Amino acid sequence: MRRHDKAFHDPQAIADLMRRAPTGFLALADAEGPFAVPVNFAYVAEEQRIYFHSAAEGRKVAAMDGSPRAGFTVCEYLGTMPDRVPGKVGTAYRSVMARGRLRRVTDLAEETRVLQLLLDKYVPGFFDRPLLPSHVDRYRSSRGSRVLVVAFEIEELTAKAALPRGRAIFTPGMTVRDLPLVRTRSPSAGHDHGVPGPGGF
Amino acid sequence: MRRHDKAFHDPQAIADLMRRAPTGFLALADAEGPFAVPVNFAYVAEEQRIYFHSAAEGRKVAAMDGSPRAGFTVCEYLGTMPDRVPGKVGTAYRSVMARGRLRRVTDLAEETRVLQLLLDKYVPGFFDRPLLPSHVDRYRSSRGSRVLVVAFEIEELTAKAALPRGRAIFTPGMTVRDLPLVRTRSPSAGHDHGVPGPGGF
Repeated sequence: MRRHDKAFHDPQAIADLMRRAPTGFLALADAEGPFAVPVNFAYVAEEQRIYFHSAAEGRKVAAMDGSPRAGFTVCEYLGTMPDRVPGKVGTAYRSVMARGRLRRVTDLAEETRVLQLLLDKYVPGFFDRPLLPSHVDRYRSSRGSRVLVVAFEIEELTAKAALPRGRAIFTPGMTVRDLPLVRTRSPSAGHDHGVPGPGGF
Repeated sequence: MRRHDKAFHDPQAIADLMRRAPTGFLALADAEGPFAVPVNFAYVAEEQRIYFHSAAEGRKVAAMDGSPRAGFTVCEYLGTMPDRVPGKVGTAYRSVMARGRLRRVTDLAEETRVLQLLLDKYVPGFFDRPLLPSHVDRYRSSRGSRVLVVAFEIEELTAKAALPRGRAIFTPGMTVRDLPLVRTRSPSAGHDHGVPGPGGF
């Protein structure tokens, strides 16, 4: 973990971030090397599980069949915090990184539940009735099983954040003359982001 | 590539996406498996290169020293496109996925250039003068070389998008009754997103 990046452990804050983030990045590897795939997802905190959808064929599924080990990352960019010292410009963000294993979901009830979770996250309140397994089954059949639901079983999860805590967030037109001459924080205050991060530079 | 996802090849559209996206996801692998790290980055189209910053130690650098092969992904979520048929709800997005190799940047001139590129992207117009190599050198020394600039040399890059093209984007409060009864597009129109994607479900 980077110096000054703050780990956070509040399950509610983690769940909130996972709900707000529309896109997660699934890390896999195959003979060509590591790669990250953007996916829609639903996080089930109580079960330490992330669900997502996949086309039933392609590089992602082939990699998953080669090894179930995977990573999953979400990052919410909150803005860039300028500083009079270029090396102290930092990024405000919240992120979650998880390590885990992938499992194909083949049970119709679990699959129906996942699709409902995704609808609840991405189009909340849009449908006036819950999905029925019979609909999912019929739909699945009509699509020739080209759709795959995958569970990511979390083995380890780390959440980190660097928050502004009083520092300004850059907006277009802001210049170095807009910052107070006194340093906003002394290095000893522990909120300085001199070390580049996913965010700092 | 997923059915109905559209590859796009316009260098300007790719460069625009890379400039707008604040966060890229660097895919690496180590003994614990694949993982994706969120990073600030600058894309140099003419050189097919992505630059980013890193703390000089940590899992990312250790993995990079183990193997230079890496992936890099950016995804811009544009919204969810509802449909009367739950399985046809889709996601509008633009993404870039690259495969390449990592290289440590040790040359002061190149390092200075990278820091300038990052400042130009994240705090454009903030500083009233360009960075000087002497400043970077002094700063680097004062930090005890805990900072590392890394170049990702792109070997292959794929850009894809699924755009609304007339389909509605979901907003809170929208329900299935707000959509016209006629299907917005026939499947043969090629813009239907029945197959779940990074985005579709």
